[in-house]
Amino acid sequence: MADRVIVVHGGCGNPAAGVVRDEASYHRAMADALEAGSDVLEGGGSALDAVQAAVQSLEDCPLLNAGRGSVLTADGGVEMDASIMSGADLRAGAVAAVTGVRHAVALAREVMERTPHVLLAAAGAERLAVSAGLELCDADWFVTERQRERWMASQGTVGAVALDGSGHLAAATSTGGVGGQLRGRVGDSPLIGAGCYADDAVCAVSCTGSGEAIIRGSLAFEVAALMRIGGLALTEAGDGALRRVGALRGDAGLIAVDAAGNVAMPANTTVMHRGVVRNGGPPETAVFVTD
Amino acid sequence: MADRVIVVHGGCGNPAAGVVRDEASYHRAMADALEAGSDVLEGGGSALDAVQAAVQSLEDCPLLNAGRGSVLTADGGVEMDASIMSGADLRAGAVAAVTGVRHAVALAREVMERTPHVLLAAAGAERLAVSAGLELCDADWFVTERQRERWMASQGTVGAVALDGSGHLAAATSTGGVGGQLRGRVGDSPLIGAGCYADDAVCAVSCTGSGEAIIRGSLAFEVAALMRIGGLALTEAGDGALRRVGALRGDAGLIAVDAAGNVAMPANTTVMHRGVVRNGGPPETAVFVTD
Repeated sequence: MADRVIVVHGGCGNPAAGVVRDEASYHRAMADALEAGSDVLEGGGSALDAVQAAVQSLEDCPLLNAGRGSVLTADGGVEMDASIMSGADLRAGAVAAVTGVRHAVALAREVMERTPHVLLAAAGAERLAVSAGLELCDADWFVTERQRERWMASQGTVGAVALDGSGHLAAATSTGGVGGQLRGRVGDSPLIGAGCYADDAVCAVSCTGSGEAIIRGSLAFEVAALMRIGGLALTEAGDGALRRVGALRGDAGLIAVDAAGNVAMPANTTVMHRGVVRNGGPPETAVFVTD
Repeated sequence: MADRVIVVHGGCGNPAAGVVRDEASYHRAMADALEAGSDVLEGGGSALDAVQAAVQSLEDCPLLNAGRGSVLTADGGVEMDASIMSGADLRAGAVAAVTGVRHAVALAREVMERTPHVLLAAAGAERLAVSAGLELCDADWFVTERQRERWMASQGTVGAVALDGSGHLAAATSTGGVGGQLRGRVGDSPLIGAGCYADDAVCAVSCTGSGEAIIRGSLAFEVAALMRIGGLALTEAGDGALRRVGALRGDAGLIAVDAAGNVAMPANTTVMHRGVVRNGGPPETAVFVTD
């Protein structure tokens, strides 16, 4: 079996005074998600199933801005976006502005598998969740006391990229959006090419940060384009794409894996929760970008 | 004043038996939209205002699948998507799955001008339309007898790209989606990088066709990437990007203008309604790709 790689992130940012409270919990959240994804890969599963498993683990973690623990909208509610893409055939699914679905990434997968569409929004997406039998949760499940206290601009997002033993790549991204956002705001996370992209011939990418700047810079697709069209290596492509978003005054980070198993995890912020597991080995997790 | 160029499209497709009924009406619709955009440019207005004016004209045309005349969803309703992007500063606005707003592209402009966001969906976007004082219409206004009769898969979309006398580029795209689509389905039209992209340093692009394939191929951004990263000329970049979408079995077409005023209007279908006006001159319009 060829090399297997799973990479996850739990958002990036510039916390005040450069301090992350309860840092160990973030390392644990990354390690748990990596284990969920790695178990799939080591069992011979696909990169697609691996990124979904990893992101579902991150969605359930109340520390991270996706699924449970999502930031609150201007109305005090929770609206979630998610996407998933298969590098083998460029199939993709995504959902935007959905409420009440425990795992938005699972619903994105349903859009990909069960509909002729790529992106479903709001009530239409929720209708699919019901017909697909996905787990639904009351609003209370998503809104944590921590977010109710903060109700602040936070730029978390979670995501995963993977290379499986068959040489296939996949990416998935999920978010609760940005704190205090307008109802119906859709960020980069559910937009193929912005917050999520995968192409077996090139790389898989999941992004986090200022969603609007990431959309305007088509960050995930730009990484792939710099490699495919420009001939850059993964690290240079990731750095170059991020510079463009930085020029749009966007705080951002991304995780990426290429077809050879190379990994890049650049960010232009001080913190990005992230981690990687190779071939079922021990998880390497990090919080500060300088780690 | 430097050269001014406005280009519009009214969707592409492969009509049965290669026949377009009432072909003259499509030429007239293109000419009307070109006049609306050209009037802005010749009056010293911006590319951004020109593409909005052109697209609003196309949205009002009951023959085209955007605004009035939009195709019907699986529920028999109308849901619209639109986007607009300024090449000068890469600002962008977009709306998805909105109902009841006469000019979805005007609402996309409001998202760009009045919110910190790029994309608003469904009820959240409609709320902005009300607060911005945009013109609202009853469902009956959008649903034409012609669409009620057809209720069929149609892949129309409308769009415009422009170069203004100050050297700025802009693009806008608007659609009623695809006939019989699921509620909440979002196509390429409101997705920056997929159905719409503009960057003064490169080109402005508006796409039409199989939305899902266009999203997976990030068609509009790919044109710009092939020029910026790959050094291709506009025509080669347009053709190359379209081939990638064709490989995903997508029917598609696009209109594009670069910073030097070059225009490309390729499609892999038999028909694409389109037209161009240069420096206030006579409109050149076409229906068949071989025209």
